[in-house]
Amino acid sequence: MAVTPFEHPFLSGLLGDDEVVRQFSIEAEIAALVRFEAALAEGEAAEGVIPVVAGRAIADTLAVFVPDLAALAEGTARDGVVVPELVRQIRQAVGQPHGAHVHFGATSQDAIDTSLVLRLLPALDIFSDRLDGLIEILAELNHTQGKVPVMAHTRMQAAIPVTASRKIESWRDPLLRHRSRLLAIRDQVGVLHFGGAAGTLEKLGDKGFDVAEEVSVWLGLRALPRARHSERDGFADLASFLSLLTGSLGKMGQDIALMAQSEVGQIKLASGGGSSAMPHKVNPVGAEVLVALARFNATLVSGMHQSLVHENERSGAAWTLEWMLLPQMVVATGAALRRAAELLPAIEFVATKAKR
Amino acid sequence: MAVTPFEHPFLSGLLGDDEVVRQFSIEAEIAALVRFEAALAEGEAAEGVIPVVAGRAIADTLAVFVPDLAALAEGTARDGVVVPELVRQIRQAVGQPHGAHVHFGATSQDAIDTSLVLRLLPALDIFSDRLDGLIEILAELNHTQGKVPVMAHTRMQAAIPVTASRKIESWRDPLLRHRSRLLAIRDQVGVLHFGGAAGTLEKLGDKGFDVAEEVSVWLGLRALPRARHSERDGFADLASFLSLLTGSLGKMGQDIALMAQSEVGQIKLASGGGSSAMPHKVNPVGAEVLVALARFNATLVSGMHQSLVHENERSGAAWTLEWMLLPQMVVATGAALRRAAELLPAIEFVATKAKR
Amino acid sequence: MAVTPFEHPFLSGLLGDDEVVRQFSIEAEIAALVRFEAALAEGEAAEGVIPVVAGRAIADTLAVFVPDLAALAEGTARDGVVVPELVRQIRQAVGQPHGAHVHFGATSQDAIDTSLVLRLLPALDIFSDRLDGLIEILAELNHTQGKVPVMAHTRMQAAIPVTASRKIESWRDPLLRHRSRLLAIRDQVGVLHFGGAAGTLEKLGDKGFDVAEEVSVWLGLRALPRARHSERDGFADLASFLSLLTGSLGKMGQDIALMAQSEVGQIKLASGGGSSAMPHKVNPVGAEVLVALARFNATLVSGMHQSLVHENERSGAAWTLEWMLLPQMVVATGAALRRAAELLPAIEFVATKAKR
Amino acid sequence: MAVTPFEHPFLSGLLGDDEVVRQFSIEAEIAALVRFEAALAEGEAAEGVIPVVAGRAIADTLAVFVPDLAALAEGTARDGVVVPELVRQIRQAVGQPHGAHVHFGATSQDAIDTSLVLRLLPALDIFSDRLDGLIEILAELNHTQGKVPVMAHTRMQAAIPVTASRKIESWRDPLLRHRSRLLAIRDQVGVLHFGGAAGTLEKLGDKGFDVAEEVSVWLGLRALPRARHSERDGFADLASFLSLLTGSLGKMGQDIALMAQSEVGQIKLASGGGSSAMPHKVNPVGAEVLVALARFNATLVSGMHQSLVHENERSGAAWTLEWMLLPQMVVATGAALRRAAELLPAIEFVATKAKR
Repeated sequence: MAVTPFEHPFLSGLLGDDEVVRQFSIEAEIAALVRFEAALAEGEAAEGVIPVVAGRAIADTLAVFVPDLAALAEGTARDGVVVPELVRQIRQAVGQPHGAHVHFGATSQDAIDTSLVLRLLPALDIFSDRLDGLIEILAELNHTQGKVPVMAHTRMQAAIPVTASRKIESWRDPLLRHRSRLLAIRDQVGVLHFGGAAGTLEKLGDKGFDVAEEVSVWLGLRALPRARHSERDGFADLASFLSLLTGSLGKMGQDIALMAQSEVGQIKLASGGGSSAMPHKVNPVGAEVLVALARFNATLVSGMHQSLVHENERSGAAWTLEWMLLPQMVVATGAALRRAAELLPAIEFVATKAKR
Repeated sequence: MAVTPFEHPFLSGLLGDDEVVRQFSIEAEIAALVRFEAALAEGEAAEGVIPVVAGRAIADTLAVFVPDLAALAEGTARDGVVVPELVRQIRQAVGQPHGAHVHFGATSQDAIDTSLVLRLLPALDIFSDRLDGLIEILAELNHTQGKVPVMAHTRMQAAIPVTASRKIESWRDPLLRHRSRLLAIRDQVGVLHFGGAAGTLEKLGDKGFDVAEEVSVWLGLRALPRARHSERDGFADLASFLSLLTGSLGKMGQDIALMAQSEVGQIKLASGGGSSAMPHKVNPVGAEVLVALARFNATLVSGMHQSLVHENERSGAAWTLEWMLLPQMVVATGAALRRAAELLPAIEFVATKAKR
Repeated sequence: MAVTPFEHPFLSGLLGDDEVVRQFSIEAEIAALVRFEAALAEGEAAEGVIPVVAGRAIADTLAVFVPDLAALAEGTARDGVVVPELVRQIRQAVGQPHGAHVHFGATSQDAIDTSLVLRLLPALDIFSDRLDGLIEILAELNHTQGKVPVMAHTRMQAAIPVTASRKIESWRDPLLRHRSRLLAIRDQVGVLHFGGAAGTLEKLGDKGFDVAEEVSVWLGLRALPRARHSERDGFADLASFLSLLTGSLGKMGQDIALMAQSEVGQIKLASGGGSSAMPHKVNPVGAEVLVALARFNATLVSGMHQSLVHENERSGAAWTLEWMLLPQMVVATGAALRRAAELLPAIEFVATKAKR
Repeated sequence: MAVTPFEHPFLSGLLGDDEVVRQFSIEAEIAALVRFEAALAEGEAAEGVIPVVAGRAIADTLAVFVPDLAALAEGTARDGVVVPELVRQIRQAVGQPHGAHVHFGATSQDAIDTSLVLRLLPALDIFSDRLDGLIEILAELNHTQGKVPVMAHTRMQAAIPVTASRKIESWRDPLLRHRSRLLAIRDQVGVLHFGGAAGTLEKLGDKGFDVAEEVSVWLGLRALPRARHSERDGFADLASFLSLLTGSLGKMGQDIALMAQSEVGQIKLASGGGSSAMPHKVNPVGAEVLVALARFNATLVSGMHQSLVHENERSGAAWTLEWMLLPQMVVATGAALRRAAELLPAIEFVATKAKR
């Protein structure tokens, strides 16, 4: 329950994000896998790849399907992926004669990658809203406090007087760029992964792309002419985006922590962390957290890029590595956005005659 | 419940390690924090820093103390660390007049770092046992299969014939070295962190080191002449060790996956993963997992080294970053050792006349 | 001469790229710095910020300016950046009375960041051409060999038969996406960095943006309403792009090395590396190099993201870190593109009846 | 000439280390390769593996051997390693009949890894001396300024008053530990790599270890019972050590930069960097450089750990990746030690009544 702060009983308030974590709950994961299998059955039925009655039976069963988690765990430890056992359970639930049509022509990666996408998109939507909110908060901050004279610092030394606007705009402008990046990334991420055993949908004959289009519509995704099983640039690019975003927020956090230093005093924090040894302190906890989350994502992004070396048509090792990294990066990004929105309303720029 | 595979309902069998995860459970964490505070009270009482009766009252209370987790979460989100709120709760539980002596002279970092150490040591002991086990398994494998003629490969090409011994020994020798490293690392890690507000134990007058020695004895740790709050080389060195270890196991996994390739067939796997699309396959899941875990730790180790840049007497940002990385690395290491011990007995070297 | 392979007398053929390295030669660097200072003088003269005659004198002097490198080295060791000493030398070369107008209103970072941009753009143009070339080569390869039957492999095991097209297209499609990304990145990178001491162009009064526009025209860059000194997302995004690109090429290299394995034999290499111990071998050196370069950039990208935490108006530490990482990543990318173009024409798919 | 700062005409003063770079010059590299081949010939002659007269002829030729660098470059680009072409040139230089005995029983990796070791050891010796020097400087600093009252800072806030000793000792203690680590690392690194084609010295019959011992004596290294070609933990551990060391120096640099802030003023720098825009500033360049070098090594260490996944008996990809990372890390470490020794004598602690 506590290996990472993200789901930790008392660290998650500091470093987690319940709303985003929910996308990575077991319930959300199963639901997304089931949604994929249901859409697949519907799409294949619509295109005549499986009998319509089978498609219906599968969809009906999946609407109320509850998996045996213990058996899923056992299967995953053995197969490296949950899908073979999950499909076995679904087939059993559907029963004969339609059960055999479950997951027809698909492979584990189709289900796993697509179900991930189905959970990434809502997370990106949350990020989009929060980015808008932060941009708004910073605009407001600029409006109310932008004219406060503060000292600029370069290379850790007082440089020349500027106004708080200079600071605020340098925090806000990157967020505007990240908002544009988010649109492009969302477009890359929101695709159906569907290729079958080796990416060629060989079991669907000439109906592969038609089925893909049907399934895509059911899932609100974009169909691709060719599956990207082994082409991981979309996910690595997403990881880069997440780290760019937390990096910009980390820079803002670092600035705030530096300005809030006792001796500098250019920012006053309405509230801050207390100390077990020194009751007089107001620690810039919200600002420090942004730095930690930035450095966290900047660390993990490297592994997502290592995963680009994805051997052959499907790499067990490189793919598994993504599972260990990407969800955490998403949650860390949510946490940074959340904490930034809490921090900013609590800062007050102080007109200082800083000595040079 | 599912942001990382380590505590995931069905991925943890693949990539987790229940025994090691237990060290990072909330129960273990609270217990370790409580152990620190109890030992501190006992030690300070023994040295006359706090009244003996206060020490007794605190220890007695802590023996049955159950924290209010919701309040801990709130406090942590505010203070950046759980200790201020935890200490408040403990003081309240102890009541007047002894409550004021709780946590006397200590700071949050003393409790957090020491409680981490108290959980790292059992994890290292588990690793030590497992390392011994693996070394044994490999010795046995060498004994039973070492003479099987196989083809050596350099730069991904068949090179010259060797025996399986050549492979097995190249997997075993690094583990022998890791066993030596583990001893040195354990010695570095197993220290009491106790420095007070700024590392000088200023509230203890000239009794600082005596108290530290007392507390150390209670906790089975080594006392240090000076607290290492801001000197993180011990933890970063531990992270390096963990990644060295998983790296060596990852190399073994990579070798096994390569030798088990359909066309190479120099290793036969008694059991492997099934595929949802291709029932004929035996996937080298256990081997791939070792590669993934190796690359995971090789990624995260970088962040632990970034944390060495720990500003001033205590860095909120750099310290928090460690919390996000180190426990995961420990669990990944446990998982790699566990999976390796499962994998090795399942491999059979096949005498092959590989074509060059 | 040999700390990195990129400029190493005998490793640079393996891992370097002379054409791209040239952008990072000292000659190119000085030339770009001088170009910035000349354009600045011209632009400021055009806007009446400095006398027209001073602008002319500065530009004329810079056209033939040769710096004292030893003094630059000394100055850089002291100031952390070459510009103060460079400007001193230029002022001296211009002489009185115009020398005082050199670098007016600008700061070191304006010159350094802009001069970097002036060298990154030609490198990106080289990459664009090479990407086009690779896409073409792969189209041709698909045309001539796409129908060869080969075995697909998932999780390191033979899966089902496919054609070589399946492989080739999975190498080509990401390059098409990278070509689109390159356009967006080029647009982000190709901006003038010009903000003066603290990013506000305070010495230029209300003429700041007009001067920026003039200077931009001289340099073929885009003017920005606000300087991005402390907003490093553009450079970090560039680094991500470079690593995405080398990652995709690394995946191709890994595939080729795996298919060229002696026992697999699905790809024959027209030429390969020799061995000092085993004359019979044909090592897939060109393929391995792509993997190494991919993992190299995947490593370094992390540091570029750490640099996003750029404190205040200018961070000595974070900025310097970029200098240590970005040029290497650019050269590694050039090398990967170069080696890929050499490797692909040398591969021949072999129709294999691979055993499952 | 300028892709990295380490050999850059004007950045190397800031970030390089001429003395350490010399170990990675082409001259040093060739010399070390030649030393290996000469020692091999001598050792094999002594053990009767090759004729004594051949051993003599080879050693004599090598004493004056000058390679054809252009041909080495061509050979390396083709073979992935310089040794095949180098051996060809040496054989030609030795002529018939003795030339055939050159490099007998050895493989490229024996020459490359051993020649690297021969250059790493002097670098480690330099580091050892500089560590001693720094420890001394800090002891002296403690002696002269340790009693100056300064403010401790935790979480970026003034905490409680301490003396400068508290700071100085927290910088010095890790260096004492690094000195111990250096001894252990030196012992790991200082081994002969000698295994032949696949690590079994198969061409030497039962004389393998005897030859290894002879060669080791010639080279001042330790012979190993089994070659470690594919076991890279020694080099990855070295990389970890380098990053631990630069990390501790980076922490010191960060502290100094923070204390030297205009508003904090707890450290005065006797000299610092100038600014092209703000002549009044004294920039803490020497301190920032330590932070940048720390983050640089913390970034690269990840790639060295990725290299632990070294497939089979020799990995082209993973081995090449090491070449791209390790020498840079060594030079960065040298630079950090050098800069720290320059920085420390220039700092003066200032007794401050910092406001809380």
